Amino acid sequence: MADTRWLNDEEQRTWRAFISAIQLLTDQLDRELQRDAGMPHAYYEILVRLSEAPNHALRMSDLAERSLSSRSRLSHAVAKLEELGWVQRQDCPEDRRGSYAILTDKGFAVLEKAAHGHVEGVRTHLFDQLSHQQVRELREISEAVVNHLTD
Amino acid sequence: MADTRWLNDEEQRTWRAFISAIQLLTDQLDRELQRDAGMPHAYYEILVRLSEAPNHALRMSDLAERSLSSRSRLSHAVAKLEELGWVQRQDCPEDRRGSYAILTDKGFAVLEKAAHGHVEGVRTHLFDQLSHQQVRELREISEAVVNHLTD
Repeated sequence: MADTRWLNDEEQRTWRAFISAIQLLTDQLDRELQRDAGMPHAYYEILVRLSEAPNHALRMSDLAERSLSSRSRLSHAVAKLEELGWVQRQDCPEDRRGSYAILTDKGFAVLEKAAHGHVEGVRTHLFDQLSHQQVRELREISEAVVNHLTD
Repeated sequence: MADTRWLNDEEQRTWRAFISAIQLLTDQLDRELQRDAGMPHAYYEILVRLSEAPNHALRMSDLAERSLSSRSRLSHAVAKLEELGWVQRQDCPEDRRGSYAILTDKGFAVLEKAAHGHVEGVRTHLFDQLSHQQVRELREISEAVVNHLTD
């Protein structure tokens, strides 16, 4: 414990600013999605991943990986999305224990409608605040963290 | 709707990388805090804010502002922290409707113990992955977002 590598002042300020930015931004986008489309950001992400997949369908295990969600959190969200009629579950013919999540036409329509406002929010609250240079830097910083944590 | 300012490829890639980084990083730090100190990151933040305040005490409204938490989310968390004996609530003598949250000695000891591992996690998973230049850039980017969303 004696050799804990404490943060210096610059790192401390960066960390505080970063977690504040994350929290304010995700709360804002969550509120907007909830207000305009009746769903939290996590649901939106699931619908996006399904909309990008062939036949709008993904195995639950692949969907968990692509939406960076734990299996239990994903199961809970997909159950809610099923109730809403936006997603259907179907057993995998080739794997008795597996199942697919499939985006319904209703779910696709909801996603299309939600996307306009959400993208506008992402632009207003993030990209409009950054220079081109900062956008590139943010990508490089984010990719460094992602590469480290998915290695 | 026709004039939605969709993201270009670079912005799209940046956004994907950014939300992946946020999710992977916060999940990782949450898991580590849960494993090593038996609390999620939100609780840790509340204990830190209280530890920095004079007499380790803050009005609930100030605590909500400093921890960027909604009042309802904060009330819920503070109730849990009270159960754990890490925080006490006390009525404000000067404001009948207000109350203070106070960090207990036990809560302070828990925080001190948790801080070592948590700071090590922040360093390992974020700062060790970035150059000095990137740390400065991340602070500037984060501050731009915070300033926009708290204006």
